[in-house]
Amino acid sequence: MERGELEASPYLRDDRLTIECVISILKDARPFVDDVADAEVPPSDIAAHLGKLLQGKEGADVVLEVQGEAFHAHKLVLAMRSPVFKAESCGAMRGEKDTGRITVIDMQPAVFEALLHFIYTDSLPAMVDPGRDDYKEIVMHLFVAADRYAMERLKVICESILRKNIHAKTVMTSLALADQHRCNRLNDACIQFIASLDATELDDVIASQEYAELKATSPLVLVELLEKTNRLGKSKSSVHIGSLVQTVRYIRM
Amino acid sequence: MERGELEASPYLRDDRLTIECVISILKDARPFVDDVADAEVPPSDIAAHLGKLLQGKEGADVVLEVQGEAFHAHKLVLAMRSPVFKAESCGAMRGEKDTGRITVIDMQPAVFEALLHFIYTDSLPAMVDPGRDDYKEIVMHLFVAADRYAMERLKVICESILRKNIHAKTVMTSLALADQHRCNRLNDACIQFIASLDATELDDVIASQEYAELKATSPLVLVELLEKTNRLGKSKSSVHIGSLVQTVRYIRM
Repeated sequence: MERGELEASPYLRDDRLTIECVISILKDARPFVDDVADAEVPPSDIAAHLGKLLQGKEGADVVLEVQGEAFHAHKLVLAMRSPVFKAESCGAMRGEKDTGRITVIDMQPAVFEALLHFIYTDSLPAMVDPGRDDYKEIVMHLFVAADRYAMERLKVICESILRKNIHAKTVMTSLALADQHRCNRLNDACIQFIASLDATELDDVIASQEYAELKATSPLVLVELLEKTNRLGKSKSSVHIGSLVQTVRYIRM
Repeated sequence: MERGELEASPYLRDDRLTIECVISILKDARPFVDDVADAEVPPSDIAAHLGKLLQGKEGADVVLEVQGEAFHAHKLVLAMRSPVFKAESCGAMRGEKDTGRITVIDMQPAVFEALLHFIYTDSLPAMVDPGRDDYKEIVMHLFVAADRYAMERLKVICESILRKNIHAKTVMTSLALADQHRCNRLNDACIQFIASLDATELDDVIASQEYAELKATSPLVLVELLEKTNRLGKSKSSVHIGSLVQTVRYIRM
């Protein structure tokens, strides 16, 4: 934060600096924690047991078809983890045509596999690896899948990863995702990132295909981006914001 | 540890004290941990989802009868958590008489309810409350149930609680449990506790019904107790160990 920005902020008043802290309290669900030192008791193995169930396919009662690939699963587990799967399998159970098969459209098999892994184990599979070139892409797809199947925790995890991996190349895609899937924190992080770019970097962003797509599909997002970056980066990026203003004017015509 | 004991121990040699450390490494199963600050991501909710399944009874396909009380559950969950339940429900599935009912003998309904809660949530229910008079008794029963259904983690948790709640009144019951269910750490804790008692306290233990029962059923445990307390409490409790020696002689006759 620059000096001028700080001096102008409401946090500095009468020679006093106010620091705002947001405290998250994580409630521990284990009532025995007081009586048992953690080191003695092995960590919860319930997710490992579910993971074994997925791997071994034992008792599986539904096949999910994703672009020709078949995944065996348990209706009970799918339904308890995702209200969308619950509705789907209840529908299938009620309907006459319960063939024990569900076809999943608009999703890559690899993404569905990662989703299934998370459903059973509450963790991301090794496949979702920060070292991979397509790491961010997989996480983006998983984020979309999490939203589609109303899996809130997975959505938060993906959003958190995306927020920590914003690059000039993909910031517009992230911004579009944040808009489509109602994620304020990811949206804010993208705006903050754009506000921090210099002229050349910003030009690259504006020249990208993602920018063009966003302009075509969600001009309102760009208007909000303009309003917010204008506020956030007031002092240094007025020139580049100028080009965004032109863009938005162009969009409005 | 007393000075004499320390000086006699192999850990003190040539004016050097060797300290032995046992390090337990808890492997974290979440590969995303590096990329996501814990505070942002809500804790795992998989156990909560299973808990809801138990409460709501949705999709339940087996009834467990415990002394006339009926508990609804899911074969899939029971089988994935306990190899014993797995064998029982597989047997029931194969057999001609799959009525969807399993009768559980030799167990109180309250204990079975706590066991079921642990099966679904990996945590002890609020009922198992350190503030209750019968806390230790419930934990003892749960310990026995954990051993019976081969639920290792629950067994370790119960054992840990029992080790931290050894009293003169119940130490013999704990010792008997440790012996019957092959728990060395609980066994050691009991012996250490007995070695620390003074004459009057030890007399109380020896006069207890639990002691008489142990003497009748597992005299070998008392022999081992004698051998070990003799070593542990050498300097101060030779007199009271004397009375144990007599007891063991009596047993051996």
